[in-house]
Amino acid sequence: MPPNRLDQRRARTRAALLGAARDLLVSRAPAEVSIQEITEAADVGFGSFYNHFESKQALFDQAIAQVAAEHQELLDAATAGLTDPAEVLSAAVRLTVRLPRTHPHLARVIDRAGLAYLEPLAPVVVRFLRHAHNVGRLCFDDGGVALSCLGGATLGALRHTLTVAAPDADLSETDQAARQAALGLLRLFGVPEIDARRIAARPLPAPVTD
Amino acid sequence: MPPNRLDQRRARTRAALLGAARDLLVSRAPAEVSIQEITEAADVGFGSFYNHFESKQALFDQAIAQVAAEHQELLDAATAGLTDPAEVLSAAVRLTVRLPRTHPHLARVIDRAGLAYLEPLAPVVVRFLRHAHNVGRLCFDDGGVALSCLGGATLGALRHTLTVAAPDADLSETDQAARQAALGLLRLFGVPEIDARRIAARPLPAPVTD
Repeated sequence: MPPNRLDQRRARTRAALLGAARDLLVSRAPAEVSIQEITEAADVGFGSFYNHFESKQALFDQAIAQVAAEHQELLDAATAGLTDPAEVLSAAVRLTVRLPRTHPHLARVIDRAGLAYLEPLAPVVVRFLRHAHNVGRLCFDDGGVALSCLGGATLGALRHTLTVAAPDADLSETDQAARQAALGLLRLFGVPEIDARRIAARPLPAPVTD
Repeated sequence: MPPNRLDQRRARTRAALLGAARDLLVSRAPAEVSIQEITEAADVGFGSFYNHFESKQALFDQAIAQVAAEHQELLDAATAGLTDPAEVLSAAVRLTVRLPRTHPHLARVIDRAGLAYLEPLAPVVVRFLRHAHNVGRLCFDDGGVALSCLGGATLGALRHTLTVAAPDADLSETDQAARQAALGLLRLFGVPEIDARRIAARPLPAPVTD
């Protein structure tokens, strides 16, 4: 095959492996899944696995990084029109805590990744927090502690909505939990109560479901 | 053997298996560890495993519940003299975020358990939060969201101190991070800024190291 067709085929195999890993992460722990199961789910030869990933862990790490990138894009698109960092924070927290209702597959993969999920997102969140701090809108001393509390609380709330919200529950119940999480985190960053309540209650951009 | 000696031996075997599981959790993921490794580390016969635990998962779940009970005792002992729920919250958060320096084994097991660690602690934390809410000291609407944000943020901050605090770092650095986390969480629960700053900076009971 000419090199560019070979490249295309390689890219397709790689994408199929990543897609299979994501699908498997929705309902299974990485430790329970064999490489053979992954290559069968991806419909690629077992032997091709190690041409693309050095280990099962490397594949799952990249699948989670891909989910993080999608999650990031979703938040960027929804907050593109906002200039107040407190509003950006609130919308990002609410959209994330609502994921079990709006993007259930994404939510399950994020929950499975646990606190390690924060690593691929850390650089962009730290940059956001630094900016919000510099303009005097979000108040904190240590950026690392701020990031880990914000990320941990948001993942904790996402797990809460994933666990308690019945699949047929009204979205408004999940949204109520998401507003509570956002209100708490606005307070955590020193946003005045009256502002925090107003911002956490704002209408969100219409959800896009997957 | 008379029944009471048999009971004693059973209890010793069970304790040895739980102890081995805890030791293994400090440095290994449960999925990487075989039952044979556990029985060898516990110095008990392979065949005795299933007399005590129905699966490897059941053993690790109980080992983590045991760690949660010890952690709970440690917090109860340290906060026994405090009556203000905001002070109890602050001390509990600070003592937990400092665990990587004061109780490194406990900290590693807790971090490995991830957000699932909150489950065994949930009933007592919910009871505490309800009391703090009823006396008007901590402000939140939904107890489940409050618990998951508090727990998630605390575990996030513990992972931060576990990751960034060099083993030979001054305890005061870790304590500084722990105070920041406590300050943020006091604010999250609507404790007024001046109170929150005073409470988060209070001297802690002298740490007990393991």
